[in-house]
Amino acid sequence: MEKIKIIMDVDTGIDDAIAMCLALGNEKIDVLGFTTTFGNRRCEVTTKNTLKILELVGRTDVPVAAGATRPMVKEYNPPEYSIVHGYDGLGDMENPLPEPSITPVDKSAVQFMADTLRASDEPITLVPVGPMTNVASLILAHPELLPKIKEVVLMGGSTMQGNASPVAEANIIQDPEAAYILFRSGVKLRMAGLDATWKGYIGFDELENDFAKQNWLTETIYSMCGIYVEHYRERMKNPGIAMHDSLTLAWLVNPDIVQCRDYYVTVDINGRYTYGMTVTDVNNVLGKKPNASVALDVNRIEFIQMIKDAIANLAANKK
Amino acid sequence: MEKIKIIMDVDTGIDDAIAMCLALGNEKIDVLGFTTTFGNRRCEVTTKNTLKILELVGRTDVPVAAGATRPMVKEYNPPEYSIVHGYDGLGDMENPLPEPSITPVDKSAVQFMADTLRASDEPITLVPVGPMTNVASLILAHPELLPKIKEVVLMGGSTMQGNASPVAEANIIQDPEAAYILFRSGVKLRMAGLDATWKGYIGFDELENDFAKQNWLTETIYSMCGIYVEHYRERMKNPGIAMHDSLTLAWLVNPDIVQCRDYYVTVDINGRYTYGMTVTDVNNVLGKKPNASVALDVNRIEFIQMIKDAIANLAANKK
Amino acid sequence: MEKIKIIMDVDTGIDDAIAMCLALGNEKIDVLGFTTTFGNRRCEVTTKNTLKILELVGRTDVPVAAGATRPMVKEYNPPEYSIVHGYDGLGDMENPLPEPSITPVDKSAVQFMADTLRASDEPITLVPVGPMTNVASLILAHPELLPKIKEVVLMGGSTMQGNASPVAEANIIQDPEAAYILFRSGVKLRMAGLDATWKGYIGFDELENDFAKQNWLTETIYSMCGIYVEHYRERMKNPGIAMHDSLTLAWLVNPDIVQCRDYYVTVDINGRYTYGMTVTDVNNVLGKKPNASVALDVNRIEFIQMIKDAIANLAANKK
Amino acid sequence: MEKIKIIMDVDTGIDDAIAMCLALGNEKIDVLGFTTTFGNRRCEVTTKNTLKILELVGRTDVPVAAGATRPMVKEYNPPEYSIVHGYDGLGDMENPLPEPSITPVDKSAVQFMADTLRASDEPITLVPVGPMTNVASLILAHPELLPKIKEVVLMGGSTMQGNASPVAEANIIQDPEAAYILFRSGVKLRMAGLDATWKGYIGFDELENDFAKQNWLTETIYSMCGIYVEHYRERMKNPGIAMHDSLTLAWLVNPDIVQCRDYYVTVDINGRYTYGMTVTDVNNVLGKKPNASVALDVNRIEFIQMIKDAIANLAANKK
Repeated sequence: MEKIKIIMDVDTGIDDAIAMCLALGNEKIDVLGFTTTFGNRRCEVTTKNTLKILELVGRTDVPVAAGATRPMVKEYNPPEYSIVHGYDGLGDMENPLPEPSITPVDKSAVQFMADTLRASDEPITLVPVGPMTNVASLILAHPELLPKIKEVVLMGGSTMQGNASPVAEANIIQDPEAAYILFRSGVKLRMAGLDATWKGYIGFDELENDFAKQNWLTETIYSMCGIYVEHYRERMKNPGIAMHDSLTLAWLVNPDIVQCRDYYVTVDINGRYTYGMTVTDVNNVLGKKPNASVALDVNRIEFIQMIKDAIANLAANKK
Repeated sequence: MEKIKIIMDVDTGIDDAIAMCLALGNEKIDVLGFTTTFGNRRCEVTTKNTLKILELVGRTDVPVAAGATRPMVKEYNPPEYSIVHGYDGLGDMENPLPEPSITPVDKSAVQFMADTLRASDEPITLVPVGPMTNVASLILAHPELLPKIKEVVLMGGSTMQGNASPVAEANIIQDPEAAYILFRSGVKLRMAGLDATWKGYIGFDELENDFAKQNWLTETIYSMCGIYVEHYRERMKNPGIAMHDSLTLAWLVNPDIVQCRDYYVTVDINGRYTYGMTVTDVNNVLGKKPNASVALDVNRIEFIQMIKDAIANLAANKK
Repeated sequence: MEKIKIIMDVDTGIDDAIAMCLALGNEKIDVLGFTTTFGNRRCEVTTKNTLKILELVGRTDVPVAAGATRPMVKEYNPPEYSIVHGYDGLGDMENPLPEPSITPVDKSAVQFMADTLRASDEPITLVPVGPMTNVASLILAHPELLPKIKEVVLMGGSTMQGNASPVAEANIIQDPEAAYILFRSGVKLRMAGLDATWKGYIGFDELENDFAKQNWLTETIYSMCGIYVEHYRERMKNPGIAMHDSLTLAWLVNPDIVQCRDYYVTVDINGRYTYGMTVTDVNNVLGKKPNASVALDVNRIEFIQMIKDAIANLAANKK
Repeated sequence: MEKIKIIMDVDTGIDDAIAMCLALGNEKIDVLGFTTTFGNRRCEVTTKNTLKILELVGRTDVPVAAGATRPMVKEYNPPEYSIVHGYDGLGDMENPLPEPSITPVDKSAVQFMADTLRASDEPITLVPVGPMTNVASLILAHPELLPKIKEVVLMGGSTMQGNASPVAEANIIQDPEAAYILFRSGVKLRMAGLDATWKGYIGFDELENDFAKQNWLTETIYSMCGIYVEHYRERMKNPGIAMHDSLTLAWLVNPDIVQCRDYYVTVDINGRYTYGMTVTDVNNVLGKKPNASVALDVNRIEFIQMIKDAIANLAANKK
């Protein structure tokens, strides 16, 4: 079986950690490396979290390259505390994961991506699930490598309401210019945004009564999810916790799991209230050719099962 | 029975003409005057059209005051031809309405509004169904008259997709700064936007087989609707012709006819692709107090019946 | 002798007060009324200050109409204290001017301007020396009165550096959209901006040793100037106190007192660091027709003498 | 003697070609390579021109790396013809330089810069004299290499009027976001902008009667300058042809040749009329620490002599 080769770009908070498990535990995915970015927390923290998760699941063989510490153009004033991911970005567990004993590779994220793409015989898929800064910087610095990018499957955006402003989603609003550059680049794009990711949740009861009890790894993840659950239950009034970042991978592995449509999408980089909005031309008012496949719905049951299977796989195979 | 006193601000194209008939023919509405604005066509043309309609229905007693000839801040480059309303704004009928024999009053639109509000014992409702330029100019020039404005029931905007850009509706995009000023003014607001007005249509068959055959006035309106029908059938793929402007009046007369919710709404005045978007905080991400009641759906059958009744009333009473 | 009829639009702080004296004391100027605006202080305060000055100089016959309380589009967050004009806008004197016993007319500023223009046989000059909000609102609400405006001679802007941001002047930055509307309106314009007004100062020694000792009114003005002097001496490192607002009137009365050039000027209404800049096409890069005569230098000696003469005149004639 | 190691980033038109000669012919400068960018012409053309100049002067040992083909964020619509540099960017000479027989290195401009910086024991100076796209992309992609950049000495910007818009200079306006990123990066900066470069000209008579007659290379350059002379004589009304790009190198070699001041400089990236303006806080209104040394004047005689000496040196040493 041919595996799908990916580089995953993460700002490791809680749902990134779960998505990492999906990527590493699913047999159809070959993770060539993780690159990190500011986002859910500052880049020092997300990089450390990425290393912690690799140690937790026994996959310290996968290289990690640290990347963007701030947005390309936007001012950067990260909050002291994330109401979704906590201070440490991994839920401030009572028994936190140990400090990592491994370190990132001695290359910047963009350098790692460029070297990996250049060395590869076949095109590689990029899966950014944080702000698009690293991917956009790669595109700017290395236009000669565009043919080596098979596609970009990103978590971010929305065709309707936002979660970080009335109309903008959190990943995109954290670096609107980077997202703008990505959407304009001509690279093949799949956008897993809020339209679908809000529907890809683990229900609160399901989480507690089923998911958590699967194995030692789901138990750890469950204890990581305390404030994530609280956020979705109290503030978002969701029926469960959204598996935003994981949807990119599920879509990659099984396209049938997602309902999608092709649209022309651009990103607002000027408006006071619309900065970071993925402006989606649903009615094709502009008459432009679509540049992205946009996820609109997900088969939730199959999606959650895929996550559980990958975690079980990882848990069983830890050396 | 107490009638609702309104000043209606129009950019008379085809659906404005029908809305004028609804306003003049409905027994619960007392039209104190029409003010005109650029919009569907240049202001000279919309003013003339407003006078033509009054002569057509025999209501030359209602004063008309000519208003804004361009947006407050935005550049103005009106198209030579409107694909929705034609060259003359009234569908370029084979037998066009005669040139008006009456003239506007000798006051600007804002002066007419200001004098009428000042002279009135009770607050008056403003019903703008074109760009918001006149109403916003009134608010800027005469803040002392805000207490005399009962409410503003406007046609414009959308909480979702647009018809003039991917995310902006035609009335708002024609003067985004004016709409911004109106939404920020503190005046009581009802927004009849595309969410509801696209659902308030007369079906194509219905129009031909039923509506048109009611009386001499519906016959005239039907012949006016040629290119309007074509637009909605060919380009918009709608099931009928949307009665955008009329919805304001139907909502005013019978609040039950419309489903609505209170939202905080502002208008983007900066973005390249979002200029003129009514940014609606559906998820209350900003935590601001709602400033507008937003129409989301309409009882189409009752709505169309109300239009037909008003026209029948007008047709029967023409002196 | 034919007097120049003006309506002066003020946000009465210290240099506005002096400019009021120049306007009222110069025999070539006929002040038809003062309109007030937010600016140096909130509009309630500047209106009260305008009335106080009229009582001080015994000219309670001149009508005052209260105007704009905030900018047209920009957010408004006035500071608690002005480092240039103090809390009360008139220098927080030890013996403050008494509360006014007169009141504004029962018309908004725009209504007063519109009625005065309409009633006049000859065109009238408008002299705004605060934010351009009232004048721009007049233009929007009453385009029919443009021919009645002889010209607008404004204090504001700069072709080079600013005083309220690196490139913006204080009056313009307080309502950039209003200034944009004014510069685009086609009205004949003279711009007395920082290029010239910074050069139209009363030297610190001159103020103390000569100006202050002229008469009872210069003594009062001198005691008003305490923090104004401090501002220019300590922060601005100027050789004296700039008579910004007065320059408009001196230029009006004696065109030879000012060196000027015709330029195309527009106002930036979007930029983060350029919002409110009067973009002046000195090299005619755009190839547009000039729309303003821009003051570049002033005959300081004659200018200050004109101010002193007018004040002496007022002081001598107080009933 | 320790030479100053530089990478020069060029969009080779006429004055870039002369600056290349200055860089290659001055004994204090060691050019490690040229990187190319779109700018005066499309990148394919400027790259070819850079190679042509190296062949002309017999320095095909210096590597050339092709870079940015468009701005980072701004739309790109290059004109068919440059009124300053001609169709071919080198003045459309009657006897054009031959097509280059050498080719660029097999690395992107950013990759070349990154590899060169990484391999160097000492920090290297970057000298961009076109749009800042390559340098800004380097900064984004390789923040780890910032300590290896000794300083950036750039041609671009202005503290006053512009040449490409009323307030923007041509290099900056071609990629405002790139310049914004550079000015915000914390890298040590010298800005050789229009304030000084307009003063660093070769007079028209001087060019013809003295400069051109020096040697075979000045003769070639002279024949290259036909439309460049015309531009400065007819449109710009300059006393001679400005040596914009060369000023960076002269300043680098002899700091005394330039008068400069330290300012806080940022770049407008939003305004309609100010897009690409280097907003310079001359009066320190923002109270920020300076981030750039800004050239304000130049010793023209010494500057032109330095150019002539370098060219003579090159001409004499061609193998």
